[in-house]
Amino acid sequence: MNKPIKPTLIIDKHKVAANIGAMVRKTTDKGVRFRPHFKTHQSAEIGEMFKQQGIDAIAVSSVEMAEYFANHGWNDITVAILVNRLEIDAINALAGKINLHLLADTPETVHFLAQRMQHHANIWIKIDTGYHRTGLEIHQHDEILKTARTALEAPNLTFKGLLTHSGHSYHATTRAELPKLHHHTVAQMQKVRALLEENGIDDVEISIGDTPTNSVVDAFDGVDEIRCGNFVYYDVMQAALGSCTTDQIAVAVACPVIGVYPARNEIVVYGGAVHLSKETIQWQRSAMEPGDKIYGLVALPNETAPNNDEKTTPPWKECLENTFVRSLSQEHGIIKTNNPILSTIQPGDILMVLPVHSCLAANLLK
Amino acid sequence: MNKPIKPTLIIDKHKVAANIGAMVRKTTDKGVRFRPHFKTHQSAEIGEMFKQQGIDAIAVSSVEMAEYFANHGWNDITVAILVNRLEIDAINALAGKINLHLLADTPETVHFLAQRMQHHANIWIKIDTGYHRTGLEIHQHDEILKTARTALEAPNLTFKGLLTHSGHSYHATTRAELPKLHHHTVAQMQKVRALLEENGIDDVEISIGDTPTNSVVDAFDGVDEIRCGNFVYYDVMQAALGSCTTDQIAVAVACPVIGVYPARNEIVVYGGAVHLSKETIQWQRSAMEPGDKIYGLVALPNETAPNNDEKTTPPWKECLENTFVRSLSQEHGIIKTNNPILSTIQPGDILMVLPVHSCLAANLLK
Repeated sequence: MNKPIKPTLIIDKHKVAANIGAMVRKTTDKGVRFRPHFKTHQSAEIGEMFKQQGIDAIAVSSVEMAEYFANHGWNDITVAILVNRLEIDAINALAGKINLHLLADTPETVHFLAQRMQHHANIWIKIDTGYHRTGLEIHQHDEILKTARTALEAPNLTFKGLLTHSGHSYHATTRAELPKLHHHTVAQMQKVRALLEENGIDDVEISIGDTPTNSVVDAFDGVDEIRCGNFVYYDVMQAALGSCTTDQIAVAVACPVIGVYPARNEIVVYGGAVHLSKETIQWQRSAMEPGDKIYGLVALPNETAPNNDEKTTPPWKECLENTFVRSLSQEHGIIKTNNPILSTIQPGDILMVLPVHSCLAANLLK
Repeated sequence: MNKPIKPTLIIDKHKVAANIGAMVRKTTDKGVRFRPHFKTHQSAEIGEMFKQQGIDAIAVSSVEMAEYFANHGWNDITVAILVNRLEIDAINALAGKINLHLLADTPETVHFLAQRMQHHANIWIKIDTGYHRTGLEIHQHDEILKTARTALEAPNLTFKGLLTHSGHSYHATTRAELPKLHHHTVAQMQKVRALLEENGIDDVEISIGDTPTNSVVDAFDGVDEIRCGNFVYYDVMQAALGSCTTDQIAVAVACPVIGVYPARNEIVVYGGAVHLSKETIQWQRSAMEPGDKIYGLVALPNETAPNNDEKTTPPWKECLENTFVRSLSQEHGIIKTNNPILSTIQPGDILMVLPVHSCLAANLLK
């Protein structure tokens, strides 16, 4: 790794390839479509690493991201956020270019698309399996049927199936809850599919996707597609949930040390909320202040390691014990440490901060 | 205001001008140098509004921002973060171009600059008056004197004075604490100045700056310079602290409505953590869930209002009662409301979200 001079996102590509491979073995190798969510990395270069492992369909979380990846050769894209009617012109342009998948949770939105789409698009009904962000609830039979029929009747639309994001998996308090939550999600989605079948609507696909549950189960029986995204980098939040180990975290922000304060066991780095985001998490594994909110874990760089060679040492070492980011302001991070390492750190050194939420850190430093 | 089609930062320039004017009347009009912190807006256009009110010296929080404003005609800039030694080449280039002010809290950093600076720079000693981020504590007499003397002895450096940021003002629980905190900060800084004078070091300036305390006091006796920045836009955090009213908040993010859920009194907008940041605050004034953490307040747009005319209606109306952003994911915001307005909102409408922390929202949408 070349020594960065300001806060810089550093990616461990060996870990990225391993994280992708582990998910491919559980999905495409077993006949389930793997449509990774590219909102985490937003990077054409990381996208190529997926392509090398056989992936050709992706999800994104904005029309803008869909345009970016369409311009980088991706032809099968789900915009995995409810249709924003105000962007209909850009949606139309995309649909003229690629095989586009859109989300709706009302008959009115599908009707709007039927009226306004000049090119073909695929429609997925967003189902709320407990996250309570968007989607129709599984008991809303009339609305679900009406939404599906509106899509089926429109000559420019194809009704593809049911899609959910079990984002409430992020609220799990133990790892053991995650497989249960996965099976509950699948069972709910199958009930909705059965409802459609009872009403003569067949060939309904089921798409699910969230990194916590997708990481802890070995197979996806009863599901046609999974769409997790965060797993490509993982982060401290996933490690706290138990869906990865800290060793699997494939991204860190290199931060220059600007102040060292032994009297309060603190180091201050140039690297703040505009680099890491203000995402925070209770970190139970700290022997210092158990249950404290943290903004990141900390590791030492392997400064001599080239990043892209085979069998190289990784760009950073193991996470430092008893060391975490306790506070972030716009450009500053305050690192608390009881580790004897403190006495060896000087201004001008680099510390690697493993972010709480890699999607937000990668967005800030893209 | 033209109707935005995706999350867009909207600035009420009449409020910006009023917020600047109020601070100018308390500072430059009374002989105190007003060096506004431009990290909040990071905008050459907003910078021009300061210039129109007589401002010619500014603070920024990174070398990159200093370069940006230097390229936009600003010649007197304080990089208000401890020197990052790794950026010495860029610092040198800046010092060759403008009147540059740098911060240090060790004799070693000043020595480093004395050795490496090829152009003149001004040195301020960062003092920690209670925030405990960076700076020498006021009892560290030897270090303070040694740092000042190292600067005084260097032919390429000018020792300008003592600088602090009382960021602990953001932890105040009542507005009444803020003026007390200001006076305590000034008293501490004057003690350090007295220490320097007793040791034969004269003409030492005092620079302070934080929006909460700077907003609530009427004058800055005993201080040479103030450097607040957030006041230009203010935000929900400042309103919660009592350093502004919600009517003074000069920035909002226009967010398209994508889902309406009357059964749970919620509206979902396209507008999430990548637009507003994950900054959150306890909002005590909600009659719905007092003490709940919120990610923003909500207002209706004045869609017919052009933004830049004189005596125009503002781009958004008053904050909606009992309405707040309860949750943010990467691109989604969930708005909770008990307001009857809910029944009139439809997908495709715009809602204005007033951010908890305007500096971070403006950084994301700059």
